[in-house]
Amino acid sequence: MEPNCPTSSNDYAADISSIRQAQVRIEPFAHRTPVLTSETLDSIAGRKLYFKCECFQKGGAFKFRGACNAIYSLDDDHAAKRVVTHSSGNHAAALALAAKLRGIPAYIVIPKNAPKCKVENVKRYGGQVIWSEPSMQSREDTANKVLQDTGAVLIHPYNDGRIISGQGTISLELLEQASKIDTLIVPISGGGLISGVALAAKAINPAIRIFAAEPMGADDAFQSKINGRITKLSEVNTIADGLRAFLGDLTWPIVRDLVDDVIVVDDEEIIQAMRLCYEILKIAVEPSGAIGLAAVLSNSFKTNPAYRECNNIGIVISGGNVDLGVLWNSVNK
Amino acid sequence: MEPNCPTSSNDYAADISSIRQAQVRIEPFAHRTPVLTSETLDSIAGRKLYFKCECFQKGGAFKFRGACNAIYSLDDDHAAKRVVTHSSGNHAAALALAAKLRGIPAYIVIPKNAPKCKVENVKRYGGQVIWSEPSMQSREDTANKVLQDTGAVLIHPYNDGRIISGQGTISLELLEQASKIDTLIVPISGGGLISGVALAAKAINPAIRIFAAEPMGADDAFQSKINGRITKLSEVNTIADGLRAFLGDLTWPIVRDLVDDVIVVDDEEIIQAMRLCYEILKIAVEPSGAIGLAAVLSNSFKTNPAYRECNNIGIVISGGNVDLGVLWNSVNK
Repeated sequence: MEPNCPTSSNDYAADISSIRQAQVRIEPFAHRTPVLTSETLDSIAGRKLYFKCECFQKGGAFKFRGACNAIYSLDDDHAAKRVVTHSSGNHAAALALAAKLRGIPAYIVIPKNAPKCKVENVKRYGGQVIWSEPSMQSREDTANKVLQDTGAVLIHPYNDGRIISGQGTISLELLEQASKIDTLIVPISGGGLISGVALAAKAINPAIRIFAAEPMGADDAFQSKINGRITKLSEVNTIADGLRAFLGDLTWPIVRDLVDDVIVVDDEEIIQAMRLCYEILKIAVEPSGAIGLAAVLSNSFKTNPAYRECNNIGIVISGGNVDLGVLWNSVNK
Repeated sequence: MEPNCPTSSNDYAADISSIRQAQVRIEPFAHRTPVLTSETLDSIAGRKLYFKCECFQKGGAFKFRGACNAIYSLDDDHAAKRVVTHSSGNHAAALALAAKLRGIPAYIVIPKNAPKCKVENVKRYGGQVIWSEPSMQSREDTANKVLQDTGAVLIHPYNDGRIISGQGTISLELLEQASKIDTLIVPISGGGLISGVALAAKAINPAIRIFAAEPMGADDAFQSKINGRITKLSEVNTIADGLRAFLGDLTWPIVRDLVDDVIVVDDEEIIQAMRLCYEILKIAVEPSGAIGLAAVLSNSFKTNPAYRECNNIGIVISGGNVDLGVLWNSVNK
């Protein structure tokens, strides 16, 4: 069976079974991240909020879950071929770290505009950095060239069942840590995170609501849901450097079917949420990681038809890799 | 029995029994804070480190534990008289919050040089702010005047058995969360935190080592240990705004007897530790809160005779109330 082929009865690339297997596979390596709560933020939101803090995951982002699951899913023959990926930063560092743990060299294609701290993470974990231009086309072309030159195995940052399954382990933990949750708000970019989270959460509690949080300047998931098909944008423009990718053919069907709605917020709302994360939650959160809080505080959410039924909201804080100077300059624009 | 009188067989102001009672008393109100670990910091320190994150405590610092225990220890007659304290910030906010929870008005004397975010916390929790000059003398004089004018009950920030007992609940949690700990490193100022932590930890495991971490510009505990008596300084000068107080007559005997050694670090080491907390642990930590990490990375610690026996080190991250601009400016001096 090819790793990426659909495995569930719904023909999705992952299911609760593959997610539970991922949990067992990554358990020796990944952190069980804490859930923080704040009465101050609850009172601002008018809802009980549960923050699943993946900023405390290894590498500073949820990405280690999927990368670790993918690396440890490889049989020895594939592992011997080495691995390659392209990523704006967090998947890059996560794959480098997971590969290092298994003793596999990793080639990491990184766009030149990736945040400094994310590039440093890749280097810290021993990944071999190969630069590309910022565009997704350049990232993919550069990665393909490495594939051809080296024969390494591609671990795509999101359009991969092993990655989706790894990210889904977040729901297994979170719904155990905060069993009252009736709603999840999850950042969306390529869709790997929200696909895994939605598959696991709906398997555990089919009534749970799943909202995607997406930046206005990269709202391809919002457009795709309206159009009923994958809709790519000609350009993206958002401070959320981790949310600039587009849905893939494996994540789109899950997002189409299991994500109840997409909440779109602007960069100003994201920056304000980063500030609240720092000042109230006392955590370093990157723009992409703060978007769930931005969404729950947004007018878009408060005017959503389901708003009144969302009382206990789990928010995935996806990562904390933000240069201190960038954070300071953002909140002081 | 007066609240502050010695209660243990050693004539200390608190003991494991009063600390366990405090745990039951504050449990409905206080957070059980998470313990974070980082392989990156472990490899820098050459030791396994466990960070008890009191930056996530209510009010952003451990102070809520003691304040909550003190407020809920008051009988109704005393509670009706209202409460007063003086504090550079964190105890102030904690007492305001605990008093608010019990529905008691709180008068809070704050020195004019207290950090903005700490003053905002006091106001957020409904405390009535009364300004004093920065000196401890002015703080105490102003608080005494409020006492005389209002008849309110003084809740001292550290020289109080109820406060010491509340802070000691940290050890009960931490040694359950990370049972391998053989050493604790705890910030020291007036000594309320380390007294409670040491009393509880040594009661649970008499072999555990307790180190105080103290800033060079306010090293009264270091001097006191050398001199064998409480030694006050004529002036203090440190970035660690929460560590400028001196030991009291109730905390000194505990520090004298139960604290194995005092590790003194300079402001530069504290700032470097704040940066590591932000960049690696992804948490907002105030200077006073980062001093434990500064101590574990210091030459003073590495040359300590007990260093080789300290392998699993619990570090109390005491608080996270640091203005973002102050953090940014500190690490960019």
